[in-house]
Amino acid sequence: MSHDLLRLDEIRAAAAGLPPQVRRTPLLPLVEELAGGGSLYAKCENLQRTGSYKLRAAFTVLARLSPAERARGAALSSSGNFAAAFAWAGGVLGIPTTVVMMKKTQAYKVERTREMGARVVLCEDRFEARFETLKRLSAQEGLVAIDHLEDRSVLCGHGTVGLEILQDLPDVEVVLVPVSTGGLLAGVAAAIKALRPQIEVVGVQPEGNDSTWRSLQAGRPVSIPEVHTVCDALTSTRPGNLPFAHIQALVSGIELVGEAEIVQAVRWLADSAKLMVEPGGAVGVAHLRPWTAAPRLAGRKVCILLSGGNLAPERLADFLTCPPGTLPA
Amino acid sequence: MSHDLLRLDEIRAAAAGLPPQVRRTPLLPLVEELAGGGSLYAKCENLQRTGSYKLRAAFTVLARLSPAERARGAALSSSGNFAAAFAWAGGVLGIPTTVVMMKKTQAYKVERTREMGARVVLCEDRFEARFETLKRLSAQEGLVAIDHLEDRSVLCGHGTVGLEILQDLPDVEVVLVPVSTGGLLAGVAAAIKALRPQIEVVGVQPEGNDSTWRSLQAGRPVSIPEVHTVCDALTSTRPGNLPFAHIQALVSGIELVGEAEIVQAVRWLADSAKLMVEPGGAVGVAHLRPWTAAPRLAGRKVCILLSGGNLAPERLADFLTCPPGTLPA
Repeated sequence: MSHDLLRLDEIRAAAAGLPPQVRRTPLLPLVEELAGGGSLYAKCENLQRTGSYKLRAAFTVLARLSPAERARGAALSSSGNFAAAFAWAGGVLGIPTTVVMMKKTQAYKVERTREMGARVVLCEDRFEARFETLKRLSAQEGLVAIDHLEDRSVLCGHGTVGLEILQDLPDVEVVLVPVSTGGLLAGVAAAIKALRPQIEVVGVQPEGNDSTWRSLQAGRPVSIPEVHTVCDALTSTRPGNLPFAHIQALVSGIELVGEAEIVQAVRWLADSAKLMVEPGGAVGVAHLRPWTAAPRLAGRKVCILLSGGNLAPERLADFLTCPPGTLPA
Repeated sequence: MSHDLLRLDEIRAAAAGLPPQVRRTPLLPLVEELAGGGSLYAKCENLQRTGSYKLRAAFTVLARLSPAERARGAALSSSGNFAAAFAWAGGVLGIPTTVVMMKKTQAYKVERTREMGARVVLCEDRFEARFETLKRLSAQEGLVAIDHLEDRSVLCGHGTVGLEILQDLPDVEVVLVPVSTGGLLAGVAAAIKALRPQIEVVGVQPEGNDSTWRSLQAGRPVSIPEVHTVCDALTSTRPGNLPFAHIQALVSGIELVGEAEIVQAVRWLADSAKLMVEPGGAVGVAHLRPWTAAPRLAGRKVCILLSGGNLAPERLADFLTCPPGTLPA
């Protein structure tokens, strides 16, 4: 199985095609002067419209549809963040959108997707059921089904985050990226490695979903039977094939972080950095804390991608009050 | 009683004197396309080091002390945010700092001030007792006592926020500023009105502390007997004389906002804007919500100053889970 990796010009074309509705999110200092001379920055895609980086890919994919395809409407499956972004982008572009979600998806995310204008079709609580349902909708209703794991335009949209990191922090040495299907890591790594091969790009997964970490060990994409993680945005039980090819070729490694450490990272971001970040967006912070114990940070300029901030306020309250070492109910 | 208002060159000198430790905080979009063509931005001083805009004034005041004064050490009174900023700036500059706080100050803020390196002296729970204690420390120990209500350097430090708002959003039409002593409003108004007199600068106070609003009605600074507000950073029972002179001369008005509306503004900022803002920093958002009912917003470009983000995580959790129309316990 061979895959052509994304070329820089493809990612640049996606960046040039982003409409003004997509925010140029800020790259902010988190901790300027660490012992040993290191410093820590955040690319704040939690401050992106619809609350996550997925808006870039949603626009990139939808804007490339032909007039005939636009009229038919588009569909994808999502655990929540892509759903909201897809719905919102569809609204802006006048393209009807349908989102397939598992029945167990939090009511908060289903409701938000509907509010943003998409039709939601619920399917059974099995990762592969999402793709089966998508296929059926495509066959029965003629919808353009987007395979968010393997779609090249999706990865190019993600890659635009990498271009912006380099523009705002050209001397960055390490970039940490959350991993689920691996698409974000693939896109960001493709952009960064093409321009500055010496930068280390590292993926971070929760221990409760180590599918891509296992795949890297196995040397091929493998599935795990189920996931148990507080990161409701990082639930893919396997990496995509196209993302995985990028990860094998370009990435320095995947790190695993404990679930309780992720909860405390969300709290640290709210309390110390004044940023609301969802658990799946906070895994990079979890990997580096405590800063003094992070060899990757010693004397280096590190950027953490905070990929999203969508967490119901009541759930965030649970994260904020959860004793160290424990998980919220 | 006549007061010389701040001159633009004084504020510019303060801006030029800010050290690299003071962050150039981002000015971010909050809501880009409102009905009626309005748009809403935030100057994010909650993302400032030490969690509030006070760091600018702390550095400005301390950096201007003579070598002899630096050796004696400096003192001020504060409800919390100025305390943390003063302590931290003192540490960077090598100047011993003492902070006078009322006994009722939240343990969280006292602890934070000590952690940042200041000595804390507690006084009785009366606004004026802070100044009496400060005077005593100055007489007995030779400390340089900073009168944060009337000090010209303090106001110049605050004014640097106004310069940055104009640099980042030159076509802003309305700027909303939280009010306690009125110092921040005075400094920001002095900077903005000197450069662009047509911009409306508006103060916002909580209903539970309407001291500056009352003073504006009375035509002179008046004291109120006590305050009852969720905004623990907006507790001054009277405006400063120097700030008040600026407010009378430069400001379009002071708006009052309900306490329960402030709680919901904190929640909106966390949930929708992904920013952690303390209640005293969120009053501008409380004034404008719901956006459709805010005549000040119709068709205009409005900037809200989010002045700080220091709220204990457990307290923030209470704000996030508090039913609309009620106050946290």
